[in-house]
Amino acid sequence: MTNKIPDRASDAMMRRMPAYYRQLRDLEALGFIDLSSKDLARRMHLTDSQIRHDFNAFGGFGRRGRGYNVALLRRSIGDILDINRPHDIIIIGAGNVGKALAQYKGFAESGFQLKAIFDTNPELIGKKISGVKVLNVTTLSKYLAKAPTDIAIICTPADKAQALVAPLVAGGVKGIWNFAALDITAPPEVIVSNVHLTDSLMMLTFRMHEKEVLEQNKSWVSADVESKP
Amino acid sequence: MTNKIPDRASDAMMRRMPAYYRQLRDLEALGFIDLSSKDLARRMHLTDSQIRHDFNAFGGFGRRGRGYNVALLRRSIGDILDINRPHDIIIIGAGNVGKALAQYKGFAESGFQLKAIFDTNPELIGKKISGVKVLNVTTLSKYLAKAPTDIAIICTPADKAQALVAPLVAGGVKGIWNFAALDITAPPEVIVSNVHLTDSLMMLTFRMHEKEVLEQNKSWVSADVESKP
Repeated sequence: MTNKIPDRASDAMMRRMPAYYRQLRDLEALGFIDLSSKDLARRMHLTDSQIRHDFNAFGGFGRRGRGYNVALLRRSIGDILDINRPHDIIIIGAGNVGKALAQYKGFAESGFQLKAIFDTNPELIGKKISGVKVLNVTTLSKYLAKAPTDIAIICTPADKAQALVAPLVAGGVKGIWNFAALDITAPPEVIVSNVHLTDSLMMLTFRMHEKEVLEQNKSWVSADVESKP
Repeated sequence: MTNKIPDRASDAMMRRMPAYYRQLRDLEALGFIDLSSKDLARRMHLTDSQIRHDFNAFGGFGRRGRGYNVALLRRSIGDILDINRPHDIIIIGAGNVGKALAQYKGFAESGFQLKAIFDTNPELIGKKISGVKVLNVTTLSKYLAKAPTDIAIICTPADKAQALVAPLVAGGVKGIWNFAALDITAPPEVIVSNVHLTDSLMMLTFRMHEKEVLEQNKSWVSADVESKP
C-alpha cells in the first residue's frame, strides 16, 4: 500500500502485454502447462527480470519455484487487457484502409466483433463488406442508441475525422482507433489511439542506420530503463 | 566519452522521434522560427525535461536561452531518422492490406517511394495500383538485382511471409515491415518490424478499463521512467 501508484501504465509496458498474451495463447495451443519466466523471456527476447517486473505490477501470477501456469497466466493477462469478453466494433469510412481492416481476420479471433461499417458513398451504402452491412453515416447516432458499441475505428479522410468524435462519445463509445491522417482529440474519459503509418517507416529507417548515429553521438545517454540489459 | 552508450535507443524514445518530426514539420509549415522546449512539450503532451533528455541523447540541438530553431531541429531529427533522403520501397502481396498501403498518400510525402508491388495472382500481375505495376513475385530477385531497394513491406498470407526473407536479404533489403499474421525473423543486420494490428485494439481495451485495474492492484509499481511525471 505504500508503493507509489502511477496514474497509468507506461506505454512501453503496455505494449508488451498483448505480446505476452499472444505468446501464451500460442503456447497454450501447443499444449504447454507450465513455464518459467526464463523460458518466456527467451521466447520474447526480453530479460527474465523485465518479465517479473511487468507481472509484479499486476500482482504477480507466479508460484515460487514453479514458474507460471500457462493457461492461468493467459487468462490473467486477458483480464488485464479486458479481452476475455467480446467487444463490438464499428468502422467509419469504407475506403482502402477501412475495407482492409473490415476484412482483417485477426480481430474476430481476439473477440473484436465488427458489427457495422459507415460511409457517405451512396454506391457503398447497403452493400456488405466481409458480411457486414455498410450504413449511411447519417444514421450513426441512431445506430449507437440501439446498439451500444465499445470501440469505433475511424478511417475517413483527415478533414472528416474530428467531427465524428462528438456523436461517437455521445453514443457511448469508449475507445477510438483513428487511422485518419490527423490527430483527433476526445474528452479524457474516452481513449483515443491515433495511428501514424509513416511513423513506423521512420522508426524502421532509424533502426536501419542506428549504429552510425550511435557512433556519431558519443554523449549518448540511456533514455530509459528499457535500454538497459 | 565516459557515458554508457547503450546498444540501441529505447523503444519508447524511438517512438517519440517521428512524432517530434511531424510536429516540427507542421510548425515549420506554419512559419514558426524558434521554439522553447516548454512550448514543444505542451504541444506534444510530454514534459519539458523528457524532451531535453531525448534531444540530449543525440547531442543536444538547443541554444542556451534561445530554445530551438524549428527548421534546424526538424532537419536534425530528419537526419537521425534518416528521412532527409528518399527511400525506395516495395510491397509484396497485393491483397487488402497491400492495396491499402499502396494507396496510402502519407508515405510519398515523407520520401518513401513505392517502386513495385509483387503478387502471385495472375489477375493482378501486369495491372497497376496507384500507378505502380504489380509484378510476378517470381521476378523478385531479378528486380532487386536491377533496382536496389531499402525497404520491403510484406502483406502476404502468414504462411508465405518467412520464405520471402531470404530473397529479400540476398537482394540487399535492409528493413522489412511485416503485416503478415506471423512474426518473421531475419539476420541481425536486417531490421524487421512485425505488425500486430490486434495488439493495438488490446491496448485500447486495456486503457479503457485501466483505472479499474489500477485500483485492484495496489501493489502496482512504476514500470519505467516513462510513467513518472
